[in-house]
Amino acid sequence: MHADTLLVRGTIVFTPDAGAFAVHPASYLVVRNGLVCGLFEQLPSEYAAASVVDYGARLIIPGFVDLHTHAAQFFQQGLGLDRPLLTWLERYTFPQEARLADPAYAKEAYEAFAAELLRQGTTRAAVYGSIHAETVRSLAEILTQKGIGAYVGKVNMDSRCPAGLREETAASLRETEALLADWPGGPFVKPILTPRFAPVCSRALLGGLGELAQRYQAPVQSHLAETREEAALVQALFPEFEEYHEVYDAFGLFGQTPTLMAHCLYLSDKAIARMRQQGVVAVHCPDSNLNLGSGVMPVRKLLSAGVPIGLGTDVGAGHTLSMRQAIIRAVQLSKLPQIVETSGAALSLAEAFYLATKGGGAFFGRVGSFEPGYSFDALVVEPERSGLSPVEALQQFIYADRAERIVARYVAGRKLQ
Amino acid sequence: MHADTLLVRGTIVFTPDAGAFAVHPASYLVVRNGLVCGLFEQLPSEYAAASVVDYGARLIIPGFVDLHTHAAQFFQQGLGLDRPLLTWLERYTFPQEARLADPAYAKEAYEAFAAELLRQGTTRAAVYGSIHAETVRSLAEILTQKGIGAYVGKVNMDSRCPAGLREETAASLRETEALLADWPGGPFVKPILTPRFAPVCSRALLGGLGELAQRYQAPVQSHLAETREEAALVQALFPEFEEYHEVYDAFGLFGQTPTLMAHCLYLSDKAIARMRQQGVVAVHCPDSNLNLGSGVMPVRKLLSAGVPIGLGTDVGAGHTLSMRQAIIRAVQLSKLPQIVETSGAALSLAEAFYLATKGGGAFFGRVGSFEPGYSFDALVVEPERSGLSPVEALQQFIYADRAERIVARYVAGRKLQ
Repeated sequence: MHADTLLVRGTIVFTPDAGAFAVHPASYLVVRNGLVCGLFEQLPSEYAAASVVDYGARLIIPGFVDLHTHAAQFFQQGLGLDRPLLTWLERYTFPQEARLADPAYAKEAYEAFAAELLRQGTTRAAVYGSIHAETVRSLAEILTQKGIGAYVGKVNMDSRCPAGLREETAASLRETEALLADWPGGPFVKPILTPRFAPVCSRALLGGLGELAQRYQAPVQSHLAETREEAALVQALFPEFEEYHEVYDAFGLFGQTPTLMAHCLYLSDKAIARMRQQGVVAVHCPDSNLNLGSGVMPVRKLLSAGVPIGLGTDVGAGHTLSMRQAIIRAVQLSKLPQIVETSGAALSLAEAFYLATKGGGAFFGRVGSFEPGYSFDALVVEPERSGLSPVEALQQFIYADRAERIVARYVAGRKLQ
Repeated sequence: MHADTLLVRGTIVFTPDAGAFAVHPASYLVVRNGLVCGLFEQLPSEYAAASVVDYGARLIIPGFVDLHTHAAQFFQQGLGLDRPLLTWLERYTFPQEARLADPAYAKEAYEAFAAELLRQGTTRAAVYGSIHAETVRSLAEILTQKGIGAYVGKVNMDSRCPAGLREETAASLRETEALLADWPGGPFVKPILTPRFAPVCSRALLGGLGELAQRYQAPVQSHLAETREEAALVQALFPEFEEYHEVYDAFGLFGQTPTLMAHCLYLSDKAIARMRQQGVVAVHCPDSNLNLGSGVMPVRKLLSAGVPIGLGTDVGAGHTLSMRQAIIRAVQLSKLPQIVETSGAALSLAEAFYLATKGGGAFFGRVGSFEPGYSFDALVVEPERSGLSPVEALQQFIYADRAERIVARYVAGRKLQ
């Protein structure tokens, strides 16, 4: 048998598609070089002599994928969330991000962020750092050391932002390219271009980042249409474009390489069609949108339109790194159309779970499922009590929100400590 | 000095009214016979020789008051919450409650419920058991033994419910009276009359419970106008009344003794005025209402009308016994009117905290604040990190939802183990 083969046994639950949970009680997953080779009810004879990690009645589920979160805001978790967006940014977020220039402070913040990410069962994340290239290196190293899979972005912003956080355009591009050329992360921690959002970026910065995306074939993350005010501001600042998304699109930052766009609340049908065409991923951050009173993503509409969607915690506008809470809130908010009497069916739990695993995982490649060829990114979960069906045990794990029920975590077949 | 005097020192935060947090860094609370005597920046000389429990930089806040939760549904926590109300009741809740006839099962469930209530920082709660008088006794004893303050109700229901849970009217009243006459709870655990809700109660049952309320001066709890369908059903079942609340009111179950009404989503101005007049407490259960797609309580409207309001977790329709989550969701949902463009200002965190402490605590007497004469029901909370203001530390405790930050709990001056 291959030396890098891992055999695990337990109650295996995942969502190959968004329709329903696939449930395999007392089954085996064969993992080779970190990838799922197969799922079996009976262990094939070729593995008869191999040792099995037997989790008994415990659940084995895909690790959570958080597609939008700000490591630089972790220390402001939960602060000022009954304030409106602009007050919150000015009073909490910008001063907080300015402190990430300090390597010692950044190390402390990023160590705590990574530990909490792990504790909450997130195994892959798309993460924003701050504008500071040196501490973004530190963030990438810490995530690498913890064994979490991540895309890590150095934020770019050169316009209409506080003096301490406003970059000089050429320096911003130079430091970003230096990171791409000499990236500190391991094989599972990669760089991602991160123009904060159009209102704080000049055309020169956006154009330069689009060129870097092309040259280094680097992915891109940003924010799109989080609030009506922001959308109106972008129209005013970029009058040569009819719609917000066209600003990113014109500069090669909208699906020319793999792209994440957080929020996506106020989009035209034309914008939605372009997202689908370009494969741009819409990241649904329901707690953040509620906390800041931004609105509610039309998740059913985007799903129906075929736009790829994942979930994000968006700490600090979101208050928790728990992807279980993101799942709960996504289901809850999807019921609002029933309540306010518009239209659109609510999400099932399976749909929301799918969004939090395979839906978001697709951005990382074959991640977030247990089909052959998929990376073995997994959590092992102790059910709250016996006598529950596997889906019931999973529901309870999600809603009861007791992270301590996670007894093991794997990324790419490697068990994390 | 009096033998029953307790002196505690720390960063004291509470909400004397809903407008703002009262913050007293490095201050003392003097507690005598379980009641707050005074709050001092300098310890008065008469206490100079007394020993002080010094919590240093830790927060001391009022314990949370959960005004609506179902102990009998604790073991179904988080199950089936992407289903509609009726499916959820039939598939999960009624079978679950039927099991509470078994004393051994009930003891296990109620021990777990009480432990989790405590872990989450709830020090007082209004609790539903099941229809089974014997295991309701057990629930009262367990809560007494844990030191939690509670009103505990044996559920009454004799109509339109599954056979295994349908009571014979005279037996239901007889068993309820026997509980009132020979109550097993200690001084902080008291009985409360608990007609489940009008659709499952006959006129004879409601009338008999109204008489018991009067005779024993016992408080009352029930559900009111949780969904539009339920309100329509009550109209059909009780055609002699114009409005839902009049059914309870006519039978002496609407403020004739202290009364809790959970949900209160679909009420006329007339009903709201009657609640205010009668001092009936509306219990806001935001997670439950979202989970079941019931709607959103018009909390601002009820507050403006002068109706007393508290918060409830409503487990099992709510998914967590964390009152911090109830606070978060109450603030979040209060922002929906901004989003869906109707009217009403969102809640501040202080307002929601008030609802979860003093607002709800008023049902227990002078509970939920630290003003003189108030019961010393308190949590001691370790801030996530140094350098935060007290209100920031409290915000973070609420939103980050790490119950393990609670390092001590008091009810009526007694430290719980």
